[in-house]
Amino acid sequence: MDWQQEIETAAARIAGHVRQTPVLQARLGAFDVALKLEHLQHTGTFKARGAFNTLIAGPVPAGGVVAASGGNHGAAVAFAAAQLGIAAQIFVPEMAGPSKIALIRRAGAALTVVPGAYADAFAAAQAHEAATGAMQVHAYDAPATVAGQGTCLREWEGQGLSADTVLIAVGGGGLIAGAMGWLGGRRKVVAVEPETSCALHAALAAGAPVDVQVSGVAANALGAKRIGSICFDLARAQGLTSVLVSDAAILSAQRLLWEDLRLLVEPAGATALAALLSGAYVPAPGESVAVLLCGANPAPDPL
Amino acid sequence: MDWQQEIETAAARIAGHVRQTPVLQARLGAFDVALKLEHLQHTGTFKARGAFNTLIAGPVPAGGVVAASGGNHGAAVAFAAAQLGIAAQIFVPEMAGPSKIALIRRAGAALTVVPGAYADAFAAAQAHEAATGAMQVHAYDAPATVAGQGTCLREWEGQGLSADTVLIAVGGGGLIAGAMGWLGGRRKVVAVEPETSCALHAALAAGAPVDVQVSGVAANALGAKRIGSICFDLARAQGLTSVLVSDAAILSAQRLLWEDLRLLVEPAGATALAALLSGAYVPAPGESVAVLLCGANPAPDPL
Repeated sequence: MDWQQEIETAAARIAGHVRQTPVLQARLGAFDVALKLEHLQHTGTFKARGAFNTLIAGPVPAGGVVAASGGNHGAAVAFAAAQLGIAAQIFVPEMAGPSKIALIRRAGAALTVVPGAYADAFAAAQAHEAATGAMQVHAYDAPATVAGQGTCLREWEGQGLSADTVLIAVGGGGLIAGAMGWLGGRRKVVAVEPETSCALHAALAAGAPVDVQVSGVAANALGAKRIGSICFDLARAQGLTSVLVSDAAILSAQRLLWEDLRLLVEPAGATALAALLSGAYVPAPGESVAVLLCGANPAPDPL
Repeated sequence: MDWQQEIETAAARIAGHVRQTPVLQARLGAFDVALKLEHLQHTGTFKARGAFNTLIAGPVPAGGVVAASGGNHGAAVAFAAAQLGIAAQIFVPEMAGPSKIALIRRAGAALTVVPGAYADAFAAAQAHEAATGAMQVHAYDAPATVAGQGTCLREWEGQGLSADTVLIAVGGGGLIAGAMGWLGGRRKVVAVEPETSCALHAALAAGAPVDVQVSGVAANALGAKRIGSICFDLARAQGLTSVLVSDAAILSAQRLLWEDLRLLVEPAGATALAALLSGAYVPAPGESVAVLLCGANPAPDPL
């Protein structure tokens, strides 16, 4: 697939629907870091990009769209659907908690809270799809989703990104797949995962996507049980660097972002930075680094 | 005074010490608003600009500097002094609360918590000044402070500010004085104050600075008892527009900034926006508006 072309097309499609998020150069710990504040995107994550691209590319059936989500993906689909006048039904597990449920409700979709965990919500979403013909919107392993997320790196380069290396947190791999697709090896990309939710790291070690157990402070956003095949194939083709960070390192990076920069992100949004601050990724002498802040939906609500 | 020249000089002085804070164009409620994210400045407010300008302009006596502060000013002076290797003694009233006290402590100054309210801390700071010869750093009514704060508008124009009108929250008037000094009437400036802490509004009504009672949700940042004379004189000379907002409108704007933009500000930081959203300031048809977000130190700590 010609990812650059797909991402150019996606960027034209979603222009006017997503925010151009700001960039900031800051000293954090011992590092000068270029930051992309993508956590200021609509509904607090980059996922609005993929959602808008998928829904606009269409075609959307008369039954509208459906998604199961523990939070961020559901909020993005709900928001994009509401903006585009498309019916959306989001199934969210009760264990997502009141903060993420309120986020999806505010975004404007029909929302069903399903007792239990993510698997129960996903089963309910599949039943809805079968009954109504609604389109299931995949959170990370679909070309339209990946192309949409890829517009984030395209936008960042347009804002003057000059770093040698970009650190990106990985859950199911939609965002980093879009980044690899856009960059095509022109800059080094480093994948950062929690030690306790590391589907990409496990897949690269095994030579193929495998199921992993997920837990930890970022699991509700990065806790994919299996890496997406689009991400895995790009990672293998480009020789992606993959590192792991502890929950303690993630929480420490989250605190530093708040105390030094007044950027309040969720643990997943601090995961890429954690690799730099904890020494999980050590830049070479003279290597300049950039960090993508990808999510800002902490629980509980800070207000 | 040639404020444009003073501000140019200040900008050259503090370059490399303060952050260039990002800008963002966003839809908020019924308005397209240009935002300056100055709450991402060091220690969470614009006050780092005036503090650095004052300390670098010097001369700083051997006794270092001293300040009394309920929070933001003290943190900025502490941070700037620590960066410049200058001894600083900050007196903070116990009623400032643990969150602001921790902020000042992190910033690196010698800190004395004084039982009681601001007046008690100010008395202790004056005693320290008399005993040691330390330089008292004024929070808003000194030329070096005003010139430092004026660099914020200078920077914003350099980032492409195109709005007809800029809304700015007012406490003692240092920030808006710097804005008026820089703009010299080239754009409309609107002063926004809480109904319960409105020293500028009262002064404009009385024809001279007068003492006011201060209270309400933003009082710990905007609760100056008397407007600075530099601000008052510029406001009279430029025919400044002054509006008031309720505490409810401030808290509503604070919540909207978090829910729609993931920008977490303190009530003072949402006060200017509150004027737009509540209808306290109504733009004319076709009038484009910009809002300066000035402070991000809410209590309690969101993490």
